[in-house]
Amino acid sequence: MNTLTIAIVLGLMAIVYGFITSRHVLGADAGNTKMQAIAAAIQEGAEAYLRRQYTTIAIVGVIVVAILAGTLGLVSAAGFVIGALLSGAAGFIGMTISVRANVRTASAAQDGLQAGLTLAFRAGAITGLLVAGLALLAIAVFTWYLTGPAGHSVGGTDRSVIEGLTGLAFGASLISIFARLGGGIFTKAADVGADLVGKVEAGIPEDDPRNPAVIADNVGDNVGDCAGMAADLFETYVVTVGATMILTALLLGDIGARLMPLMTLPLLIGGVCIVTSIIGTFFVRLGRSNNIMGAMYKGFLVSALLSIPAIWLAISHALGGVASTFTIGARDVSGLDLFFCTLVGLAITGLIIWITEYYTGTNYRPVKSIARASVTGHGTNVIQGLAISLEATALPTLVIVAGIVIAYQIAGLLGIAYAATAMLALAGMVVALDAYGPVTDNAGGIAEMAGLDDSVRARTDALDAVGNTTKAVTKGYAIGSAGLAALVLFAAYTTDLKAFFPDLTVDFSLENPYVIVGLLLGALLPYLFGAMGMTAVGRAAGDVVRDVREQFKANPGIMTFETKPDYARTVDLVTKAAIKEMIVPSLLPVLAPIAVYFGITLVAGQENGFAALGALLLGVIVGGLFVALSMTSGGGAWDNAKKYIEDGNFGGKGSEAHKAAVTGDTVGDPYKDTAGPAVNPMIKITNIVALLLLAALAGG
Amino acid sequence: MNTLTIAIVLGLMAIVYGFITSRHVLGADAGNTKMQAIAAAIQEGAEAYLRRQYTTIAIVGVIVVAILAGTLGLVSAAGFVIGALLSGAAGFIGMTISVRANVRTASAAQDGLQAGLTLAFRAGAITGLLVAGLALLAIAVFTWYLTGPAGHSVGGTDRSVIEGLTGLAFGASLISIFARLGGGIFTKAADVGADLVGKVEAGIPEDDPRNPAVIADNVGDNVGDCAGMAADLFETYVVTVGATMILTALLLGDIGARLMPLMTLPLLIGGVCIVTSIIGTFFVRLGRSNNIMGAMYKGFLVSALLSIPAIWLAISHALGGVASTFTIGARDVSGLDLFFCTLVGLAITGLIIWITEYYTGTNYRPVKSIARASVTGHGTNVIQGLAISLEATALPTLVIVAGIVIAYQIAGLLGIAYAATAMLALAGMVVALDAYGPVTDNAGGIAEMAGLDDSVRARTDALDAVGNTTKAVTKGYAIGSAGLAALVLFAAYTTDLKAFFPDLTVDFSLENPYVIVGLLLGALLPYLFGAMGMTAVGRAAGDVVRDVREQFKANPGIMTFETKPDYARTVDLVTKAAIKEMIVPSLLPVLAPIAVYFGITLVAGQENGFAALGALLLGVIVGGLFVALSMTSGGGAWDNAKKYIEDGNFGGKGSEAHKAAVTGDTVGDPYKDTAGPAVNPMIKITNIVALLLLAALAGG
Repeated sequence: MNTLTIAIVLGLMAIVYGFITSRHVLGADAGNTKMQAIAAAIQEGAEAYLRRQYTTIAIVGVIVVAILAGTLGLVSAAGFVIGALLSGAAGFIGMTISVRANVRTASAAQDGLQAGLTLAFRAGAITGLLVAGLALLAIAVFTWYLTGPAGHSVGGTDRSVIEGLTGLAFGASLISIFARLGGGIFTKAADVGADLVGKVEAGIPEDDPRNPAVIADNVGDNVGDCAGMAADLFETYVVTVGATMILTALLLGDIGARLMPLMTLPLLIGGVCIVTSIIGTFFVRLGRSNNIMGAMYKGFLVSALLSIPAIWLAISHALGGVASTFTIGARDVSGLDLFFCTLVGLAITGLIIWITEYYTGTNYRPVKSIARASVTGHGTNVIQGLAISLEATALPTLVIVAGIVIAYQIAGLLGIAYAATAMLALAGMVVALDAYGPVTDNAGGIAEMAGLDDSVRARTDALDAVGNTTKAVTKGYAIGSAGLAALVLFAAYTTDLKAFFPDLTVDFSLENPYVIVGLLLGALLPYLFGAMGMTAVGRAAGDVVRDVREQFKANPGIMTFETKPDYARTVDLVTKAAIKEMIVPSLLPVLAPIAVYFGITLVAGQENGFAALGALLLGVIVGGLFVALSMTSGGGAWDNAKKYIEDGNFGGKGSEAHKAAVTGDTVGDPYKDTAGPAVNPMIKITNIVALLLLAALAGG
Repeated sequence: MNTLTIAIVLGLMAIVYGFITSRHVLGADAGNTKMQAIAAAIQEGAEAYLRRQYTTIAIVGVIVVAILAGTLGLVSAAGFVIGALLSGAAGFIGMTISVRANVRTASAAQDGLQAGLTLAFRAGAITGLLVAGLALLAIAVFTWYLTGPAGHSVGGTDRSVIEGLTGLAFGASLISIFARLGGGIFTKAADVGADLVGKVEAGIPEDDPRNPAVIADNVGDNVGDCAGMAADLFETYVVTVGATMILTALLLGDIGARLMPLMTLPLLIGGVCIVTSIIGTFFVRLGRSNNIMGAMYKGFLVSALLSIPAIWLAISHALGGVASTFTIGARDVSGLDLFFCTLVGLAITGLIIWITEYYTGTNYRPVKSIARASVTGHGTNVIQGLAISLEATALPTLVIVAGIVIAYQIAGLLGIAYAATAMLALAGMVVALDAYGPVTDNAGGIAEMAGLDDSVRARTDALDAVGNTTKAVTKGYAIGSAGLAALVLFAAYTTDLKAFFPDLTVDFSLENPYVIVGLLLGALLPYLFGAMGMTAVGRAAGDVVRDVREQFKANPGIMTFETKPDYARTVDLVTKAAIKEMIVPSLLPVLAPIAVYFGITLVAGQENGFAALGALLLGVIVGGLFVALSMTSGGGAWDNAKKYIEDGNFGGKGSEAHKAAVTGDTVGDPYKDTAGPAVNPMIKITNIVALLLLAALAGG
């Protein structure tokens, strides 16, 4: 069987796994009527939100499709549609499983920690493997169609496959930024608003059923942390693997029959790692010490270790032996070289997970230092949290830099691309760890609202605490892979530029001031984007506060449990606010490259326009990497510093230190769940728009 | 008279102005005995701190001088010593005036707002003009000595003048980073510590004499906001003007007699702007509306407008007519071109002042939005403050980018250098506006402690509120000029590299992954540096809290006014903490370029080592510009949001909103006064160390 066919078969295994496991999860006990009623309200709210979000995105999408079809042709437009639909589907499926698994996890947690963990993790694993599987199938089947039935060739002058894949990546990215940002604004506006008016003003506990924003808060976990995250990782997978394929085609050019297996090798690597991820999921079990994080690590480690021989086999199959070599420019690259680069990618993934746990876990200096600083008040908590968030960028950057240097030494640019591909190949497992978080978070909420025994809430809390770290891990992993993928995309940009405009000599040297201009403008984008995200959350949370205050005032029976608050009204309000607020920031990375290219071209000519645009692409990663890493790690650390105090340290729940830690947690919320993670798709969109612009200019 | 001689004469005018005005300030009434006793305690603490700081720096300095003398020779070492001594002197003089003007301002404020303003502003103007004058004289006299008595020539193969100026810049920068960071840690540790334990725990007002940390807080204003700031701006001036001269020499090469006037033209521009700054100081007067900020603007505007014809005359004199041209590479540049570039610099300065006022003034959306967010609590205050701090980077970046593009279009790299020089030429006036701040801040403290009439405190508070904005302005101005200066320094680096290693082909293109590696590592530096600064303040503030608690416990008479607290003990404690904490972060930018060069050279060869080092220089500005702008603007906005609430908005003093605003102010303190402003000298040091490393490698 050829490489592509095997990849498609392996991708289908993820779908089969998802189907079987979801039957298992949905077959579990869904708890008593009260629990089911609460779960139904969450489900309804989440579905209503996603419906409205997708409707809004569809309007933007139709315009984009029309533009793409008009400027670049039908293949690009078709790619965009497939990427957009499947990215949306990944989010939708993740949410669908999550809103059904939450109540079942609450029910299972009545039987013990292991039962709760198994159910929640399986729900996460369905999302994880469907994200990886759908992403793999999207690229693989589209490539098969273009090179098979549609009769396009790779290499040579037919650029249909490249343009189709670029369109696919654009579709995935554009949906993803809307989903990440819209979902992120929803979840944090509801969370912050509910906390402010519930915990702080009314003095009622978290997840108290009297709080009208409590359902919105739980809906948010599903539409932001689950659906938004799934769309984001789908995008990351498609862009990274797609960019590696495009780069292979561009670098190798017309080498005949050997091109196709080389170009589809990244898909095969993705395919074999789906199998290792599925195997890994069965190893997520509590040991004797009941260490939940340890159980997660066991699963990840099994997947990662099994991936090593699996990738070896994949490379060997595609190249006809790992010793087989091919030539890029003046350089001979062997299958063994590519294999070592994938090891670099796996090592980066492992190290980033380890570093993220250090910065966000309750056992280490960073989180403890924030908890300790809470004793002297709100101000010192925030100062220390900001200090940690700045510091947390250092080690991941050094790891990424070391990865770039080593992979480049081994196999040049393609080596960096393979390191990134190997990182993403484990996406099934990594997303599983992450998607588990919102399920347990919701399970705790349902347990609280349904008045289950305190021991149940204690178990879901224990499961949820780990969720804070795994959520931070995925974000660090996504942005870290973006660091490598951006180099690959930039290489695609420069290679394309030479192909489309062979007569232009574009000077990408740092000695060209327009390169500096591009770098500065690129680095500005994540700041501006972050500002918009933070402001949006603040504004929408304010709306929630006002709505809840009105409900309490108009309906005094709520506080005495006599009447139920109007949950749907708050959900609806947050929905509208999130949809409205997501539009402008999402369009920033789409329009900025176009504005910079035309602006600089007007002033200093087309060559400098292209130079500034290229620099913008790297500026956005140089700026964005730090903004994203600091926000996601800092936010996770703040959250767990609060949990650490709630565990009885530095005065415990209700102490002044706890109040200060709640402030830090509130600040960290939009940092880690709205602005920070949305930087990842933002970087990709900027890069892809630049590639599309190039193609459009060349065609025009 | 030749250009250099005129520049020296004009530089001396600043010294004369400082001498005359200081006699006037010191001749003013110093208030009653109680006020004088408080002022004496502040003075003593500030002098003790600076003595210890300079002793510590001297140890580092001696080591550096030995290394410089050994590797690069005596001229470099002598330049370093001059730069270091005068940078220290600038800080020392600023502090000396400030600690004497504070009590006199408090006394003058008894007679009315105008009297207080006049005295405080004159004190600031002394510091401002001495900073500009000493910086100008340092370069001018050293250049005169090297080209005159020492018999070195400019152009050709004698690199003594270039190496001397680089050494001078290094000396100024190294002192400056220590002073900015040490002073910044001192002032904010004392401020935050005093607030936490005084306002929050003991419930006594700010500047209450019972607070043992109150003198340390006032000392901090002088050693951080005054001495540290003066050393920083001295450094910025020396590096910018020096870099323009070095670039001129490197670009023009051996053009004979015309080189010297062209090379010293930046000094003449500095000289004439000292005169216009002196004239401007006389226009700082309240109008009928009693608008203090308006009075400041009047002074600045007069200076800026008078500078336009003054710079025209300077260029005309140096070139023998503005129409006169010279050739750089293939390009003809005229005096008129240079003149337009200086206008760009003046416009950037004006726009940055205007933008900073928008983001930190109490009349505009940003500060009001933070104040409004305080109503819903500590968390929303901090979220909105962070959103504003991120947003505040956008307009200054666009202004700087526009400045780069326009100046480069007019006169190439030298045009950018002239824009930066024109920005710095107004340093006398800008520093005057800034140095006025700590004087009024202290005056308010003395009025409070000495129990003067409430109307006096009201007047000093009004003067101080403007100080928050002017302080933010100077920092935005310094970092903005650093953005331009970094390009000039990078150009010096690449030109030097070609001269020293003509056989190497170093690829600075973004397509070289080692360039990306350098950019990422460079962008990391400000984050790591910021983390260290923030942590240091948190740790030292904790020490203050513990010390004050102990004093209250051991000596209950303090709270009943029966016994006086041991102010000196707290001052001593903060002194030791600040000195200890400043060392490691200050060495980061010194060692990072060396580590990156040798690290990458080891792995990927010398050519990539130089490429990564060059990229590091730009990475540190691309990353640092945003970190610094966001921290300084955000901090200023938080501070004034608190003041806005204290003025009676959103509930006023003592309300819940006010408490939240105090938290925001506390967070903003190390942002705006420790970590943020120290990024500016950090960027410069990284660049200068790279230049020195090049010279050392070439010589070795």
